[in-house]
Amino acid sequence: MKIVVVGGGTGSFNILSGLKKYPVELVSIVTMMDSGGSSGILRDEFGVLPTGDVRRALVALSEDEILRELFSYRFDKGKGLSGHSFGNLLLTVLKELKGGDAKAIEEASKILRIKGKVLPITTWDCQLCAELKNGKKIKGEAKIGKEEVQNVYLDKKAVIYDVCVKEMKDADLIVLGPGDFYTSILPNILVDGFVEAVKNSDAKTVFVCNIMTKGETKNFTAKTYVKELEKYLGAKIDFVLMNNVKPKEEIIKKYEKEDSVFVEPDYKGIKLNLLKEGDFARHDPKKLSKAVLAILLGINK
Amino acid sequence: MKIVVVGGGTGSFNILSGLKKYPVELVSIVTMMDSGGSSGILRDEFGVLPTGDVRRALVALSEDEILRELFSYRFDKGKGLSGHSFGNLLLTVLKELKGGDAKAIEEASKILRIKGKVLPITTWDCQLCAELKNGKKIKGEAKIGKEEVQNVYLDKKAVIYDVCVKEMKDADLIVLGPGDFYTSILPNILVDGFVEAVKNSDAKTVFVCNIMTKGETKNFTAKTYVKELEKYLGAKIDFVLMNNVKPKEEIIKKYEKEDSVFVEPDYKGIKLNLLKEGDFARHDPKKLSKAVLAILLGINK
Repeated sequence: MKIVVVGGGTGSFNILSGLKKYPVELVSIVTMMDSGGSSGILRDEFGVLPTGDVRRALVALSEDEILRELFSYRFDKGKGLSGHSFGNLLLTVLKELKGGDAKAIEEASKILRIKGKVLPITTWDCQLCAELKNGKKIKGEAKIGKEEVQNVYLDKKAVIYDVCVKEMKDADLIVLGPGDFYTSILPNILVDGFVEAVKNSDAKTVFVCNIMTKGETKNFTAKTYVKELEKYLGAKIDFVLMNNVKPKEEIIKKYEKEDSVFVEPDYKGIKLNLLKEGDFARHDPKKLSKAVLAILLGINK
Repeated sequence: MKIVVVGGGTGSFNILSGLKKYPVELVSIVTMMDSGGSSGILRDEFGVLPTGDVRRALVALSEDEILRELFSYRFDKGKGLSGHSFGNLLLTVLKELKGGDAKAIEEASKILRIKGKVLPITTWDCQLCAELKNGKKIKGEAKIGKEEVQNVYLDKKAVIYDVCVKEMKDADLIVLGPGDFYTSILPNILVDGFVEAVKNSDAKTVFVCNIMTKGETKNFTAKTYVKELEKYLGAKIDFVLMNNVKPKEEIIKKYEKEDSVFVEPDYKGIKLNLLKEGDFARHDPKKLSKAVLAILLGINK
């Protein structure tokens, strides 16, 4: 049984860390439009595609603790090194040695001894752009997020990496999310060929709805998320997974200071307690994995 | 059967690359006094011991081609990255994560899947110093090499890493060299406990004499090398391996431009053709390994 997880960022890290403990075939498809931080600097200096989302997915799927630590390490000193992630540097060097982003990820996967596969959504160089509700147009993933988004698009044509199409074709489930809606999930859907790949697959689609919302998706409820997602996907989502437990009052208050509010699970999908114990309002990898596996096995309706 | 190779730099790389193809247990003990280049910068910025010689030995013993390439990669662009060796960065990060130089080398050995062991001669922080024939005193390995050396010493006390003592104790052969005499071989001998470790071992000692000489060892012949080595070691060397074939005239001429001349094999040891085909006057890893193995097996006298 094969599950394809589509996304990027800490959301993908979360669900992959949970799912890797179960006997399923895992494929992580990640966005390549990251434009900030260490990833962004290397993108400018080496002309490689951004590696931040790839790195996180690789770490999530690696079974070797020291390699995971190493790959996640961020230099906090050293002239020119400070701020760089070791994993990003490794991917950059592999790209130089192997001459291709997909090849570099494949080699890194071997080194990290990962369970499953990590695939870039595209190997074409492009940037995420957004038209905001206030009419402004912005370019670059790192700039998007703070203000309400009207619409996202790519600055130039990017075609889906063909291995993604192959993996999606014979997958049993395609899971969209969890993750930042406009900057981690949609960039994958915007790539030429993604929508068709979903259409041509027999896999059921699952959307993991966000727990909290702010900025780019201000005031979104589950309904708004699904409606917006289906607009870009041009198709209905088969299953929507929502968290229906509000975080503790003190956590809600902390988030409200940053204008972040709880997402109302007001859609007709699957509503469960998906909340992780702790100081942040995040998905629990275990609860989320179980919910996804229940869908895979046809236990959830 | 266990062979301990003592040295550093390209010389150690050379002999280890050759020996690793044979069914012998290999231990590479390397100097930690490197003060230049990428190694030197990281030493200053992170307070880690220099990693250059360790890195080369690890690469020599790794059986995985892509990891070898990765580890040897040197950044040629990128602000602050340019000039750094990827292997040095990896060792630096492992040191930060593991909290010790020896631990870091051990982890790197696992990642690189090396045959045998690489050990730092010491984990004490010290610098190589030299008193020159012209009376000047200089400090720092990177500064030593161009002028004739009278005497080398360490700027402060450094004690041998205890695992080195253990490995030397039950070794069959301890091979000194090949390598730059004052900057790759002697720094190991200068460390507190090395001379005693040789004395307390039943292993036979072998010195691999240099093929060409210049600068620090100007006008040295095999006899001078052996005499000088035995002075620091406080003991006789059991076997001296000398190359007895002069490189081609055009190569000799090229070297003469840099004041580098052929070392006369004027000592009473083992004289063989150890020369590698090609544009440089270097030891052939295969010929050199065979000569060392012959000593190990008692075939050479």
